[in-house]
Amino acid sequence: MVILGIDPGLAIVGYGVIEYKGNRYRVLDYGVIRTDSSTLFPERLKIIYDELTRLIDRYNPEDFAIEELFFNKNVKTAIQVGQARGVEILSAINRGLQVYEYTPLQIKQSVAGYGRADKRQVQEMVKLLLNLKEIPKPDDAADALAVAICHSSCLNFKDMFKMK
Amino acid sequence: MVILGIDPGLAIVGYGVIEYKGNRYRVLDYGVIRTDSSTLFPERLKIIYDELTRLIDRYNPEDFAIEELFFNKNVKTAIQVGQARGVEILSAINRGLQVYEYTPLQIKQSVAGYGRADKRQVQEMVKLLLNLKEIPKPDDAADALAVAICHSSCLNFKDMFKMK
Repeated sequence: MVILGIDPGLAIVGYGVIEYKGNRYRVLDYGVIRTDSSTLFPERLKIIYDELTRLIDRYNPEDFAIEELFFNKNVKTAIQVGQARGVEILSAINRGLQVYEYTPLQIKQSVAGYGRADKRQVQEMVKLLLNLKEIPKPDDAADALAVAICHSSCLNFKDMFKMK
Repeated sequence: MVILGIDPGLAIVGYGVIEYKGNRYRVLDYGVIRTDSSTLFPERLKIIYDELTRLIDRYNPEDFAIEELFFNKNVKTAIQVGQARGVEILSAINRGLQVYEYTPLQIKQSVAGYGRADKRQVQEMVKLLLNLKEIPKPDDAADALAVAICHSSCLNFKDMFKMK
């Protein structure tokens, strides 16, 4: 099964495409989509939508896994990134993919083994699990791969996670 | 010129389609798109996207005007509605429409003449300006028509408003 994992964002969207087969992983692609703050906002949404649609068409994933957003304070940022995340989900659903959402806690738990793991520990586990020579760069790409790994684990333990 | 005005939302999206020609208005359509909270979130986004795309294809508007979101407290709501608003903007940009965003203040200012007008005063002005027998229902539809009217005024006084 091919899984597309997404670290949602507006300026930077992380993506990771992995194949998960017989408990083994193969990395097909990872990276980031960047949109510049000097670009008109609707155009930024369109760039993200088009790039993700292109990725989906190239790798033909069955499942789409995306991290949930949490913001404590900055409502303005929450709205901005929220709008981008809506478009990210739409790119998947418009191509008929199954969409799954995971909290940061679920992702840490499933990738690093416990929910209070720090960023670096999660990234090290991503490197190990995917048999990579180095931690994927930038962070957003590594995070997206973590989301994809989380989803692969959750396929095995679906009942452990409350899907929205 | 045909304008599609949007009062953004997730559970209820208000829309209003008006034709503006020689300083006169003609109402082509208005109403709301509803999505139920029992429906999966990605599906709700798709319903909104598809319905708006259908409206655009039916009325072929040139411009798309949408209210900006303001939330003071509830970050969770801000994220939810933000995601829907992203999809609403995408429906327009994917059909090649020009997208304009207006603050509540700009809308009240241009429809009711002053920025501190209350909801009822704005709705009364919508009714008057559009030559309707009654205030359009529900509120979200009336609000969407107000956004469309705001945009028509702004076409005349573009420099008064700072477009994003």
